Order: sequence, then C-alpha cells, then structure tokens
Amino acid sequence: MTSHTVLNGVDAYREELIASGLLIPTGVPGVYGRSGLFEGVIEHFEALVTRAGRAEHPERVCFPPIIPRRDFETSEYLKSFPQLAGSVHSFNGTERDHIRLLNQLEKGEDWTRGLPSTEVTLTPAACYPIYPQLRGTLPPDGKLIDMQSYVFRHEPSPDPCRMQMFRQREYVRIGTPDAVRRHRDLWLERGLDILKRLELPAQAVIANDPFFGRAGQMLANNQREQSLKFELVIPIGSADAPTACISCNYHQDHFGHLFGIRTVDGADAHTACIGFGLERIALALFRHHGLDPDRWSSGVRDTLDL
Amino acid sequence: MTSHTVLNGVDAYREELIASGLLIPTGVPGVYGRSGLFEGVIEHFEALVTRAGRAEHPERVCFPPIIPRRDFETSEYLKSFPQLAGSVHSFNGTERDHIRLLNQLEKGEDWTRGLPSTEVTLTPAACYPIYPQLRGTLPPDGKLIDMQSYVFRHEPSPDPCRMQMFRQREYVRIGTPDAVRRHRDLWLERGLDILKRLELPAQAVIANDPFFGRAGQMLANNQREQSLKFELVIPIGSADAPTACISCNYHQDHFGHLFGIRTVDGADAHTACIGFGLERIALALFRHHGLDPDRWSSGVRDTLDL
Repeated sequence: MTSHTVLNGVDAYREELIASGLLIPTGVPGVYGRSGLFEGVIEHFEALVTRAGRAEHPERVCFPPIIPRRDFETSEYLKSFPQLAGSVHSFNGTERDHIRLLNQLEKGEDWTRGLPSTEVTLTPAACYPIYPQLRGTLPPDGKLIDMQSYVFRHEPSPDPCRMQMFRQREYVRIGTPDAVRRHRDLWLERGLDILKRLELPAQAVIANDPFFGRAGQMLANNQREQSLKFELVIPIGSADAPTACISCNYHQDHFGHLFGIRTVDGADAHTACIGFGLERIALALFRHHGLDPDRWSSGVRDTLDL
Repeated sequence: MTSHTVLNGVDAYREELIASGLLIPTGVPGVYGRSGLFEGVIEHFEALVTRAGRAEHPERVCFPPIIPRRDFETSEYLKSFPQLAGSVHSFNGTERDHIRLLNQLEKGEDWTRGLPSTEVTLTPAACYPIYPQLRGTLPPDGKLIDMQSYVFRHEPSPDPCRMQMFRQREYVRIGTPDAVRRHRDLWLERGLDILKRLELPAQAVIANDPFFGRAGQMLANNQREQSLKFELVIPIGSADAPTACISCNYHQDHFGHLFGIRTVDGADAHTACIGFGLERIALALFRHHGLDPDRWSSGVRDTLDL
C-alpha cells in the first residue's frame, strides 16, 4: 500500500510560498505575514500604478482600515454582504467586569460575548471612506481619488489568494455617468496593458460580487446582465478558476444616492472604481515568473523598475 | 459683550490641520483620513528610519493589522489593557437571521449584539505578530526584526495625536538580556539623534503603559521603577503634556516566556522594541515647522530627503 498526498494547485503553491519564506502562516486561514521580498514587489507594483495614473492628476487620500459604523450602515453593505463584514467590539466594563473576563479567559470560555460594539467597523473596500466625505455638490469635473487600504473580508480559506485582510489600491471616479464609465473603460484597458507588460496571462471577464443568500442571486444576475463589474483574472492556484487581480466596478448611483453626492446639474452622482488586489498581483508574479525576482525577465523587471 | 472662543492648543491645532486638508475628520473621534502631503512626509520619515537601521541588517516582515485571537489571548494583553483592545466580530447566520439583522438596522436597534467573535482581533502593537512565530530556540545572535503595522487602541479622543488606529514602525530585538538592552539603549540614542536632525525639541523621559484599574497602577509603578519604558516626547498639542513620538520598551522575558522563545542556553528570551509613532512624528513636524514642507528648513528637508 502506498501512502501519498495529492496536493491540488492551491495547496501546492501555498506550501511553496511558505517554504520560501514569502508567506508566513499564522495558524488562522487567510491571515499571513509576508517577507520583505514580497513587500518590495508590492511597493514596486504600486509605483507602476502611480505612474500609470499620473496624467489625470488624481487626489491622494489615505484612511486607516476602519470606518465609522454610521457610514458603514449607510452604505448598505449589510444588505448585500453581511457574511463578510467585520464589526469592532471592545471592553468598557468595570474592574469587577475585568476580573470576570479574565476568569472566562482562564477557563477557556468565550470572553467576547458581552463586548459592546464600538463606533467603527473594518473597511470592506478601499473606496468606502471617501463617499461620506463628498456629500453635497461636486465640482463640475467631479472627483478622481487615489486610495490604498487594507480591507477585511470574513472568508477564511486555504487559498493564499483569499486573505481575510489584504490591500487594495484604487482609483475612484465620482461624477456624471459618462465621466464615470469612461474612467472604468480607460482603466480596464490600462489594467490589461499593465498585466501584459508584466507578462501575466490576464483576461477580462464579466463578474459579480458575492451577494448573500437567494435574494442576492438576483442582484448578482442583474450586475452581470448590466456588465457593471469586470475582473481581470489570472490563473494562480488553478487554471479552471483563475483569480481576480484587478476589479473594475461601475456602481451607477448607488453611493451617490446613499451619501447625498450630487453633480452640478443636481443629479445623484455616479461612481466607479478600479481596484488592484496587491497581494494577488504579487502572488501572480511569483507564480508565473518564479519565487526569485532577480531571475524575472528583463521586460518584467524593467516594467517594475526592479 | 464680546463673544469669542478660546481654543486650547490641541483643539486649535486639530482645526488648523483639518482646514489645511492634512487631516480629514470622519465624525468619529480619533479616526481621520490624511492627505497625500501628510502621507508623503510619513514615507520620507520611514525611509530615514530604514537608513538609520540598515547597518544591523534587520529582517523585514509585514503582517496585516489583525492577529489570531489565540495569540492575542496568550499575550496577556487583556490582563493589562482590556479597555484598549479591539475584537473582530462577524455575522454567520442564516437568511432568516439576516432579515432580522436588517430589521434591527432599519429600526435603529443594535444589530451587533448577537455577532460572534471571529478568530482574529485587531493588532494592539506592531511587534505582537512576531512573537508566536519565534517559538523554540533562537539562533545564537537572536533576531532583529523590522516591522510596520496599523495598530488599534480604543481610546476615542479629540487630540489628533491620539488616533484609534495609527501606524507604528518598529525594530524588535529578541535574544539575551544584554543584547536586548543594548538594542534599546542604541535606539534611544538614535531616536534622539533623528529627532534632533529633524529640529524637533525632543526629550527622553521614563514612562509607563496605561495599565487598567487599581492593580494596573502597581504594574505601572513597577515599570517606572525598573526604567523599562522610555519615551521620546515632543510638545505638540500642549507644552505641559508633551506627546510620546518614539517609545523604547524593554519587556524583559514577558513575551519570551509566554510564547516559549528560548535563547541557545535554554533561558526564556528577552525582548525589546523601539517604536516610531508615524502619524505623531508627522504631526510634530507640521506643528514645529509649519504646514508646508516646501518651506521647512534645508536641514530638515535634507534629513528627510525631501
């Protein structure tokens, strides 16, 4: 009798990343540390994205990876993705309560049950913090914002491409439907061009968000029928189910309506964002070009200014 | 009758930062966005810290701002600082539960009460994720780790220097008591030197952590008596209560013991970290040199390579 383990692509790649030190497992699925080498690739990729977007003079803003609970509620994220949300809770009891908490902890009981929620939740997508800031009437040309943030998705997975907390770099356009669609289409092309220069086998596909429940299926179908979401996908863990590395989203007037953002003609503003999944891009590069960036092709190295 | 508002230092500075666009308020105390100008200063300061630490060849690792709940529990953070911790909770119910949640949300009721905790908490200090990784016996020279992370502290405050989520850059030394104390002392001097070259009026003071409750007062006294914590403080909001911008902490064998980290002679490893409060350093620079980095002195600009 022979005994062996058959690793599928995802598992084999994860083990390779861990053995090389690029990913550092923590014992919780989807929560990894990364080496300096991994982070360096992300930094060079971000610089490339900055160069690609410079001509339009985006305004850079940066938020911590938490947002006010009130804004989170207003966004209707809980309607569509309750299963992915992260709510931040904290202890605000007395010294007596503290002793009880420590007793629970020592007995291995759940010490978290009584913790009240704080005024914040984890940021679900890098662009979320900007919409509450734009309440009112936009300038005539609208806005173009450059953002980067860690985001949280509660979806523990063995796939190293599906982390619970990861970084998105986004260019967010807020304005008229025309301006916003042009932004989305422009970056769909630019995203493909960037991935081509990085010699990654990318493909643009119509996609949908992981809406919750049966009602969510309708929202997903609608999103696909209207081609509101494109993903640039690259095979990483598996050839059959390539991984979305760049996401081009047209939200129509969803955020403009909820947050009271208007164009100069008084209409609800439309919004679109292009989002780069930074860890996934790095994972795609290591997958297709090998674990040592010194040995990547001169084309890829030049593109990344390595 | 005259009517005027007397702003104290903290309030006046916050208003100035907001008016200039450097800080973007979110409506929740201690949660701010920052402009690209603010972020640029932090990036240049971090590069300076990297140059200052290069000679010792630290190993760079990077974790997302969450840590496994199990490690958080092992760290005994809850014994000392329960009031500051951030526990991440998530929805894992059925479609029926989801409808109930949305109903609560619509009625303005607390929808967060039933949410179970996830396997993660927010990172309380940038160095926390590394200790569980070092379980076992260290190499003969121990370890020197370069880390940066957002950290969470639940302490809503009007003081812009006291954010709920902010970034720490840390050099963490793990090894023998001697090696670890040398690291702490070296960086105490280096930290002062960096701040001097940045023309900031810094002072080293013995300090203590904000331990919870009456029992915590004893821990704080003990920490001070043994001079385990030094802070490099700079007046920012107020001259009377200067702000800790760099923190030099000697943990003795606290983490080594809890996480089973041993030196080659079999003893519990000692640890020390030097932590740079990145937002606070930027706030100190803007406070002392003005809100426009183009007009900072050539000495400061050269030091930051601006």
